[in-house]
Amino acid sequence: MKVDLLVHAPHMYTMAGEGLGYCAGQSIAVDKGKILAIGPAEEIRGAYTAEKVVEAPHHVLLPGFIDCHMHTRHAVYRGIAQDMNNWMWAGMAPFESQSTSQTKAAGSRLGMAEAILNGTTTIGDDGPDMEGAIQNAIAFGVRGNISPRIREVDFAPYGPGELYRFYSELGQASLEDCVRLFDTYHNYDNGRIRILFGPQGADFVSSELMKKVCRMAKERGTRVHMHFSQGTREDEQIQKRYGCRPVAYLDSLGVIDENLIAVHLTSATDEEVALTAQRGATMVLCTSSIGVINGEVPPAKVFMDHGGIVGLGSDQSPGNNNHNMFNEMKLTAVCNKCKYGTPLIFPAWKVLRMATIEGARAIGLGDITGSLETGKAADMILVDLRQPSLSPVITSPMRNIAANLVYAGRGHEVDTVIAAGKILVEHRRPVTFDLDAILDEVQQEADIVSKKAEERFWATDSAIAQYMKHDQL
Amino acid sequence: MKVDLLVHAPHMYTMAGEGLGYCAGQSIAVDKGKILAIGPAEEIRGAYTAEKVVEAPHHVLLPGFIDCHMHTRHAVYRGIAQDMNNWMWAGMAPFESQSTSQTKAAGSRLGMAEAILNGTTTIGDDGPDMEGAIQNAIAFGVRGNISPRIREVDFAPYGPGELYRFYSELGQASLEDCVRLFDTYHNYDNGRIRILFGPQGADFVSSELMKKVCRMAKERGTRVHMHFSQGTREDEQIQKRYGCRPVAYLDSLGVIDENLIAVHLTSATDEEVALTAQRGATMVLCTSSIGVINGEVPPAKVFMDHGGIVGLGSDQSPGNNNHNMFNEMKLTAVCNKCKYGTPLIFPAWKVLRMATIEGARAIGLGDITGSLETGKAADMILVDLRQPSLSPVITSPMRNIAANLVYAGRGHEVDTVIAAGKILVEHRRPVTFDLDAILDEVQQEADIVSKKAEERFWATDSAIAQYMKHDQL
Repeated sequence: MKVDLLVHAPHMYTMAGEGLGYCAGQSIAVDKGKILAIGPAEEIRGAYTAEKVVEAPHHVLLPGFIDCHMHTRHAVYRGIAQDMNNWMWAGMAPFESQSTSQTKAAGSRLGMAEAILNGTTTIGDDGPDMEGAIQNAIAFGVRGNISPRIREVDFAPYGPGELYRFYSELGQASLEDCVRLFDTYHNYDNGRIRILFGPQGADFVSSELMKKVCRMAKERGTRVHMHFSQGTREDEQIQKRYGCRPVAYLDSLGVIDENLIAVHLTSATDEEVALTAQRGATMVLCTSSIGVINGEVPPAKVFMDHGGIVGLGSDQSPGNNNHNMFNEMKLTAVCNKCKYGTPLIFPAWKVLRMATIEGARAIGLGDITGSLETGKAADMILVDLRQPSLSPVITSPMRNIAANLVYAGRGHEVDTVIAAGKILVEHRRPVTFDLDAILDEVQQEADIVSKKAEERFWATDSAIAQYMKHDQL
Repeated sequence: MKVDLLVHAPHMYTMAGEGLGYCAGQSIAVDKGKILAIGPAEEIRGAYTAEKVVEAPHHVLLPGFIDCHMHTRHAVYRGIAQDMNNWMWAGMAPFESQSTSQTKAAGSRLGMAEAILNGTTTIGDDGPDMEGAIQNAIAFGVRGNISPRIREVDFAPYGPGELYRFYSELGQASLEDCVRLFDTYHNYDNGRIRILFGPQGADFVSSELMKKVCRMAKERGTRVHMHFSQGTREDEQIQKRYGCRPVAYLDSLGVIDENLIAVHLTSATDEEVALTAQRGATMVLCTSSIGVINGEVPPAKVFMDHGGIVGLGSDQSPGNNNHNMFNEMKLTAVCNKCKYGTPLIFPAWKVLRMATIEGARAIGLGDITGSLETGKAADMILVDLRQPSLSPVITSPMRNIAANLVYAGRGHEVDTVIAAGKILVEHRRPVTFDLDAILDEVQQEADIVSKKAEERFWATDSAIAQYMKHDQL
């Protein structure tokens, strides 16, 4: 039988079952974007022919990574906000407030390109003005799980503790934009593109709009993706406005349920984490970003201890500063070990599952992607094990492949990236996008935005503004 | 004037002074292994010609990284020991006890190759049987700061809490080997190779030998490099044998002084850390390795608060699992921010200094390498900023290069590596070593060692042995 694609590699992690589903000498046949068959190499070679055959002699085949939470557009100002307090308003806002739709679309191209080159096949993108990001995901061939942002607050320079003003016209316009994008793109290309509803957080929309958004998402059979208990800034706003903490507030609105993807939980207490998990919401853990921005390790362990599902997210490039799931895996393992003072927790195999199948489950795509099983989408990557960081390969008595992917992998070892059966990257070279053009365009946009950000940047007098003055950057 | 090498790049971090010493449009002239001149590109182009001119149009030039503490030989069994308790005896020893001199030399080639490709120009290697490692450093052209190991304990399978036996003949033989290597190689190639004295730790040599080693090192004008207060295993041994804690014990021997490079300090109390810094010893911080192995963040902040100098080390590939200073920098910043609950500490610029000039100072090479200054060794790297992880480049109002090196750099962005004026890596390709041959050889050695390790590995019944049984690896 003739199929679209055959992939042969000596090692495979399927993520089927409860472990990693390792198998040796198995191959995969792909047709119409899906996995048609998995079996011993000789059987697959005997049963199928294909236009395109990928022979990967010293590689491991595994599901493409699921990046559950990203703001790809921010790649335009990578690395301009870290090592500082008041990250959002003193770090990001001077630049973000100067972004046009063109800036965002260009940034999104770089953020997605970076993620894909490092093995991500599902982009969980979140932000305002997402037409460009959606078009990028469509063009690049990657799976897009896109949350257009709903927000009632402007970009005025709010100081710490100052209550945001709500502008109902901003909320209404952003909701309408989300609905328009949902109507236009949801389930595009056999479900490769999915549109979620993305209220920015409890502090950025009014109670009425929050309830409405969550109801509308449910009516449309899609999820709500939201920053959730993300730090003292949100705590203060909610306390000031409603006299309680964010989780209690959101629970009183009835919006913490199995339709909610709760991102961060940075400042949630153990009781609040337990409640969120018990209500059936899922959690996204952005270890690297929250570590840099807040100096905190979010309570993913507590969430999982209460039966919750946790995926990983790279968040954004100012204050992470990259979109690379290898970075997320290593930091997630190490930061949690250090938080709890034991090397036993967050072992490599659990973290590798969080970056693949658990991530897919966390964002509602567990039946579609995240593991290599017959009938699921052909979203997969080949990682070259003949790289210094991943060599040698030991399979007995200890198999070192998963441990090295998590603790030593850097991202450039990803040789081939396949999403929905289509090759996006081959031998480290992008097939579906022009990296040179993207880099040029982003540099131009960065030059424009940086110039406009100047006055407000210096006015912040932040730690990094001080560093600039003292030859420390 | 004709010189050996000219390097032109748009951005440079010199690390001269107290900050990063950023300059734009400056070039470097190199002659006889040293930096002859640094100045505006046009001046340098006008004043010098060279056989070899490196034009790096979208790169940053900075000092090569100083990896203060490594066990490069362990690269043969990368990734076989993590996510477990009793790492040394249940994880490492089954494999390490099967290593021959050939295994160690091969492993060292891979560990050094990996480090160099990721921008390390000073290899702070530590271990037994170091003739091979020294030869590798000589052949690869890298700067070697090598500590042949002195140890009186065998590789018998000691259980937790069981007191090690000292074999004075092992101690004597290893000291004699260290002295032989010192006499043969110390200051080889204009000081490119330095030999230190490396007692493994307070628990691995007797008091008499410890005192003798430290005295002999001083007599020869070289440093003592030693694992120091490295965890509960050492604490237990010293408590059982001498009735006190390791730092008090070593201080009673009079060996904590400005000649000591103290590695880890994992389990040192704040008072012990302060004492060690005040005695003038330096500290090596191995964030990634200690995070994986112990789930702890060593007290580098306390050490620096007491005026101590701290460098970084990648330690070893089973339980890190890589030799990559970008990995160390990011983890050092994030883990310390999380330990102290603030994004303000360990900012990018400080961490970048720890990986370069502070590291050089920590291991006694501060006058030789670690910064780009006239008269110092030409140990430097060019990092390609036109990579997704490091793009775009913003220089005003915020300069994002250092932040991106620390928080987003992965290692493959290193384009060119120069040590003692010689090009070791050019456009990511090794010039002084054959990576393919190294990978082949290490795979062969790994296959041999793994087979021999089998019985003892299963006998440990460790967490990872359990994972192997349950499809989790």
